[in-house]
Amino acid sequence: MAGNTFGQLFTVTTFGESHGPALGCIIDGCPPGLALSEQDIQTDLDRRKPGTSRHVTQRREADEVEILSGVFEGKTTGTPIALLIRNTDQRSKDYGNIARSFRPGHADYTYWHKYGTRDYRGGGRSSARETAARVAAGAVAKKWLKQQFRTEITAYVTQIGTQEIRFEGYEYIGQNPFFAANYSQIAELESYMDSIRKSLDSVGAGLRVEARGVPVGLGEPVFDRLDADIAHAMMSINAVKGVEIGAGFGSIAQRGSEHGDELTPEGFLSNHAGGVLGGISTGQDILVNIAVKPTSSIATPRRSIDIDGQPVELATHGRHDPCVGLRAAPIAEAMLALVLMDHALRHRAQNADVRVDTPDIARR
Amino acid sequence: MAGNTFGQLFTVTTFGESHGPALGCIIDGCPPGLALSEQDIQTDLDRRKPGTSRHVTQRREADEVEILSGVFEGKTTGTPIALLIRNTDQRSKDYGNIARSFRPGHADYTYWHKYGTRDYRGGGRSSARETAARVAAGAVAKKWLKQQFRTEITAYVTQIGTQEIRFEGYEYIGQNPFFAANYSQIAELESYMDSIRKSLDSVGAGLRVEARGVPVGLGEPVFDRLDADIAHAMMSINAVKGVEIGAGFGSIAQRGSEHGDELTPEGFLSNHAGGVLGGISTGQDILVNIAVKPTSSIATPRRSIDIDGQPVELATHGRHDPCVGLRAAPIAEAMLALVLMDHALRHRAQNADVRVDTPDIARR
Amino acid sequence: MAGNTFGQLFTVTTFGESHGPALGCIIDGCPPGLALSEQDIQTDLDRRKPGTSRHVTQRREADEVEILSGVFEGKTTGTPIALLIRNTDQRSKDYGNIARSFRPGHADYTYWHKYGTRDYRGGGRSSARETAARVAAGAVAKKWLKQQFRTEITAYVTQIGTQEIRFEGYEYIGQNPFFAANYSQIAELESYMDSIRKSLDSVGAGLRVEARGVPVGLGEPVFDRLDADIAHAMMSINAVKGVEIGAGFGSIAQRGSEHGDELTPEGFLSNHAGGVLGGISTGQDILVNIAVKPTSSIATPRRSIDIDGQPVELATHGRHDPCVGLRAAPIAEAMLALVLMDHALRHRAQNADVRVDTPDIARR
Amino acid sequence: MAGNTFGQLFTVTTFGESHGPALGCIIDGCPPGLALSEQDIQTDLDRRKPGTSRHVTQRREADEVEILSGVFEGKTTGTPIALLIRNTDQRSKDYGNIARSFRPGHADYTYWHKYGTRDYRGGGRSSARETAARVAAGAVAKKWLKQQFRTEITAYVTQIGTQEIRFEGYEYIGQNPFFAANYSQIAELESYMDSIRKSLDSVGAGLRVEARGVPVGLGEPVFDRLDADIAHAMMSINAVKGVEIGAGFGSIAQRGSEHGDELTPEGFLSNHAGGVLGGISTGQDILVNIAVKPTSSIATPRRSIDIDGQPVELATHGRHDPCVGLRAAPIAEAMLALVLMDHALRHRAQNADVRVDTPDIARR
Repeated sequence: MAGNTFGQLFTVTTFGESHGPALGCIIDGCPPGLALSEQDIQTDLDRRKPGTSRHVTQRREADEVEILSGVFEGKTTGTPIALLIRNTDQRSKDYGNIARSFRPGHADYTYWHKYGTRDYRGGGRSSARETAARVAAGAVAKKWLKQQFRTEITAYVTQIGTQEIRFEGYEYIGQNPFFAANYSQIAELESYMDSIRKSLDSVGAGLRVEARGVPVGLGEPVFDRLDADIAHAMMSINAVKGVEIGAGFGSIAQRGSEHGDELTPEGFLSNHAGGVLGGISTGQDILVNIAVKPTSSIATPRRSIDIDGQPVELATHGRHDPCVGLRAAPIAEAMLALVLMDHALRHRAQNADVRVDTPDIARR
Repeated sequence: MAGNTFGQLFTVTTFGESHGPALGCIIDGCPPGLALSEQDIQTDLDRRKPGTSRHVTQRREADEVEILSGVFEGKTTGTPIALLIRNTDQRSKDYGNIARSFRPGHADYTYWHKYGTRDYRGGGRSSARETAARVAAGAVAKKWLKQQFRTEITAYVTQIGTQEIRFEGYEYIGQNPFFAANYSQIAELESYMDSIRKSLDSVGAGLRVEARGVPVGLGEPVFDRLDADIAHAMMSINAVKGVEIGAGFGSIAQRGSEHGDELTPEGFLSNHAGGVLGGISTGQDILVNIAVKPTSSIATPRRSIDIDGQPVELATHGRHDPCVGLRAAPIAEAMLALVLMDHALRHRAQNADVRVDTPDIARR
Repeated sequence: MAGNTFGQLFTVTTFGESHGPALGCIIDGCPPGLALSEQDIQTDLDRRKPGTSRHVTQRREADEVEILSGVFEGKTTGTPIALLIRNTDQRSKDYGNIARSFRPGHADYTYWHKYGTRDYRGGGRSSARETAARVAAGAVAKKWLKQQFRTEITAYVTQIGTQEIRFEGYEYIGQNPFFAANYSQIAELESYMDSIRKSLDSVGAGLRVEARGVPVGLGEPVFDRLDADIAHAMMSINAVKGVEIGAGFGSIAQRGSEHGDELTPEGFLSNHAGGVLGGISTGQDILVNIAVKPTSSIATPRRSIDIDGQPVELATHGRHDPCVGLRAAPIAEAMLALVLMDHALRHRAQNADVRVDTPDIARR
Repeated sequence: MAGNTFGQLFTVTTFGESHGPALGCIIDGCPPGLALSEQDIQTDLDRRKPGTSRHVTQRREADEVEILSGVFEGKTTGTPIALLIRNTDQRSKDYGNIARSFRPGHADYTYWHKYGTRDYRGGGRSSARETAARVAAGAVAKKWLKQQFRTEITAYVTQIGTQEIRFEGYEYIGQNPFFAANYSQIAELESYMDSIRKSLDSVGAGLRVEARGVPVGLGEPVFDRLDADIAHAMMSINAVKGVEIGAGFGSIAQRGSEHGDELTPEGFLSNHAGGVLGGISTGQDILVNIAVKPTSSIATPRRSIDIDGQPVELATHGRHDPCVGLRAAPIAEAMLALVLMDHALRHRAQNADVRVDTPDIARR
């Protein structure tokens, strides 16, 4: 397969460039009978949308989604669901310099060398704008998972640059521009982000992604383990440089007697595993951490070369997120939803008739 | 696809259980004309082999590989290469207790719930013994990559439990039982590991995986980015709980002006990206860190339940690695080789005729 | 994979229903640098378009294609190419009867039982209208093949109902409403088709599909043989019930001394193989025959049942092709183009460096 | 994927050459809990085995299968099932002439041009010996289908060369060396085959492949239709040149009023569709016809060229089937079983919860 399809049974194929006419996706493999409207998808798209606070890019996109197929009389039919989002704010401008130079930290250099050509307008296909299609597809997966298993998927920002953010409650995530599960540090974070922006620089971010209500048994060892597919999904998000499941890098210094989660008839006593053992879900919460690098587009001048190999100095002006990780929460949620739904279908294919005497997928 | 195939064009499908008659794999998609003998594969198998020091499991396996197909007159023919490794040291013993209970930190619980049955002998399919097949397949990929691009892949242990290991030189990696690029701390590590073993416990490990001589242009955005496929590959290894590319989690606290690698006509000035930009290789070294959790099989008694949900206390006696991460280096190398080779073929499919005026895959 | 993606490296994922807002596809894996405009695609779409003569359905569709992504400054970029065709003539009408009954010979019965629901408007996803997306994608493959290898793909109708059509020249194919390589029988065919239509019935058709200028070496045995993938492609077209390669069913009665094509230094002396030996192209013309069943929608009343299992009598009035095979030529060409292009990329992945002393893909 | 894997969820990856040490396969995706022993597989292997009458090749192969993994305590575990068949009768001989020449009708020419090398011993990978692995895998699928749905799959020879064979009863198929559902023509067929063999020539064969007890709803339109995947499967068998579903090529001359199968509350009144409508199974019998070309290896001298392009005359002596189609019945059954099982799992993935008020997969 070419690289723009995600999943095996619930597949999402995306298309679109930052400054092209539109972007979107085809979802193939969605079970029939799921109630689905544009509004179900729009809600998540709006969470990801640019221009919602001064701490994110000021590009104004309606990000309005149109369902082109696969839904009849308000329900999915089992046929492909095509979703279309027209671009509306692709400002025409002079790209002269960018068109011929490689911005540090960007995909300019690699796209040019891979394809021998590139759409340099706003990063083309490598722009994070592409993730709108993922969020749209993820909304469908989220709805199905919730309906089938009451699965809830939540992501929030745990660190911005050097500022660690205390967890104070899920209810705060939607109440600040930082996707932070916190209320007491928001003012502080606002001034931190203002200072970053004023210094013409950017910072990275850390996020936590969680799923509750996950059936036991999802994951297809030895290669398509649930955790391996989660790692693939997360690392496929623009700017992500690290992924942890459960104790993650902390498990290096742990003893086996500490790390291995004990079991009692009432359930697990801890969750260092992050909800996955042997590549298969345990039914506990899925716990994932990801690291997002600082935005590469900054107004501070930097050294680079052009397509002829000549040295240039580049500063990226324009509308950019000073911390691209801030908008990563709905994207990470979407990707986790895609993984879980795909694996729920894969599990069902092989094991529809499995029945064992403990809570499992068959009983939820 | 069921979950035991890795790769898209250079595919590896593995089989085999810890205590079954054999394990092995089929490699499909290897280009014709590669000189290949059993010895090419045996060398890496011997590096992974158990029983080579007192710090690893004392199970004695010859791990001798037989090429069953796909090689004619010493060269690959382009047809599937089947590799077979017979198990020779599957001690028969009474599994009574383990057969009906779920060892903490192990896949027992999840295999049972997923499949409704499991081969409990030595962990069955979930045993790290399965990775012998990966190492065998990886040896083929390594040889091809070296021949085509002079690519060199190296992994070494950077931390054991709480002990960080200084990098002192690649030449030391093969000279100690810890796959450490170090000579001055070895005695210290020996006593540390002895103390872990004596305390009937285990520890985790951190590893560094690197590739040098990687062509520019490998990776298929937006989902099958090179870094995403590396994350998938690494997290698919038993016990791995975290993956970083380049600066990894450290990039959260970095500024954009620090993280984004500047370019000059002589090349990149730094490598925070870890050799991947926009999901495509830059031609710089690929830099990966992984975290391996402590071995779950320990002789310290732990609480669990049996298949009827009744509480039990379990201690795992027998032949186990006190730090399973110690043998992960050849496995991680193999997985990185599989990713790179698969992507080299994928790139070639789409871009065989691309020629640009800078060093790229076409020129190597 | 869910079933709406065709190909492995040059993948086409289609969407859309007969009476939904739009249909289209995403092409993923098209090499960069191919000059491509909407007009390149429109030409083939117009050949397939309904309403062009009295012998085909009178539905009026502009079938105008829009390229949404993957093309920049007139050339493909190597990123996904999304193609959109809006439906414009989905007449609203009362589907009451059809909505609850299963038309004989149609997919109504099977879609209902498979999905538990169906879009009954004009056949929904099972309508041959879906093939517009295939023709659009096929036009891209045709262009690339022509540019790379001078490959030419041609299909024509060889039989309509009981009327066999003599081959009189490729130049006549576009000059009659039957896609016949013939000029002397056209008047006769016109009256034959008029009589079929007046009798409120329909007939089947036979087609020949040919490719000239095919490189040696395409096909990936043992399962993804070129002929096997051609059979898959052809049988995936609505209403196709049979596929032959080369001598086809005629080869049953042949002797080996007749069937096996002899070779001389000047080339093959015959082509009973149809251009494929051992599942790999020989470089000779690819020769395929397909059988298309008679249109199932006829105005003659027929017995059936409704979704409650009660007997009904159904006659399908409205706009239908009296011989659906008449419009199959551009579709069959498109499917053959998709197969050949996909296999050209697959071959290139594995064998880019193969050089042998006879004409092969590497030299064209 | 490279080309040696068949299926999406129930995948079979085969390996092995005619004169290599062994052949076999890995089955991945078999549901757990299926009782399975070597004897289940051996029965079908013995039906395909060479040397059972004077009308087939006299090569003596035990074709004894060993299960290497995936079965524990007599039942499948859901992990990969590896099957191994050692070659025992690879006579060493001088291949001098064949090694450098291309036998007419054989894959010699195309393998050489595709791979730049080939294993010329007995045809290497292109030998029909490879189908032993398919038959072994098919036996597993057959057993599962029978247990789940009471599906029965049967193939028989309907024509040998110019001799059409009357259907007289399924019970006769195993009672003659021709896989003929006939007893009255056997003597005649014996002398016909003797005459072919004495004339140093070969003939083609026609086969019928049928499945009874197929659930409604199998098939994934628009590309992975059940009939399309059957066509792919059949055409992937060595020497097959044509595939028909239901009325096949006969449907060209049919009227719509004849072809479209009418429905009553008691069921379908005919089966011109061959058990598939819109690419999805109807629950009727699946009816398939295939054409097998005459064996290319004949003792009559024929013109060809060598690898230097020089003219040669070749006659193939040795152990060859005078009608390779005679042994195709178990192979065709195996391939149909693989398709049906794969689609049963695919259907189950997407539609496990579909319940409608008519007989469907959920009720069987």
